[in-house]
Amino acid sequence: MARIAIDVLLKRELLDPQGRATERALPDLGFAGVSDVRIGKHLELDVDADGEELAARVEAMCAGFLTNPVVETYRWRVIAEHERADAPVTTTVDA
Amino acid sequence: MARIAIDVLLKRELLDPQGRATERALPDLGFAGVSDVRIGKHLELDVDADGEELAARVEAMCAGFLTNPVVETYRWRVIAEHERADAPVTTTVDA
Repeated sequence: MARIAIDVLLKRELLDPQGRATERALPDLGFAGVSDVRIGKHLELDVDADGEELAARVEAMCAGFLTNPVVETYRWRVIAEHERADAPVTTTVDA
Repeated sequence: MARIAIDVLLKRELLDPQGRATERALPDLGFAGVSDVRIGKHLELDVDADGEELAARVEAMCAGFLTNPVVETYRWRVIAEHERADAPVTTTVDA
């Protein structure tokens, strides 16, 4: 069992309207010096496999269902519990 | 100047309908053994800063504009050129 993170973006040569709109809005909001903004999908999922079988299954899922290889590229990695984007923030609560 | 990747997910305690729908579709498509699917946003952008200033600016952007802290959590990291989700695939072309 492994926790997998997959990042999906439009191919670099394609216009990314969402990224462009965000980039244009940032200076007016006080965030200058930001460029080349690209916005896509982030997926996290548990896969019940390890090693080469894990890699084969993730690649098959990405290429066959989770992304559109015509217009998108992706990158995936195994992540630890504390690397999840939805990991709870550690807070101290007084008793 | 640094290339930043930001992953955004709904908080873990909230229902993620897109992730749930994907998880339910996978077995019928031949991808068994996948669970706890969460789907959110992935952003990549260049920020013209380094060190502590970079961290402060990315945190301010994430909390103030790029995510909704009421329902979402995020995680960001500095990435190298080859770690971009839209890095071109290396292909060999015969002359």
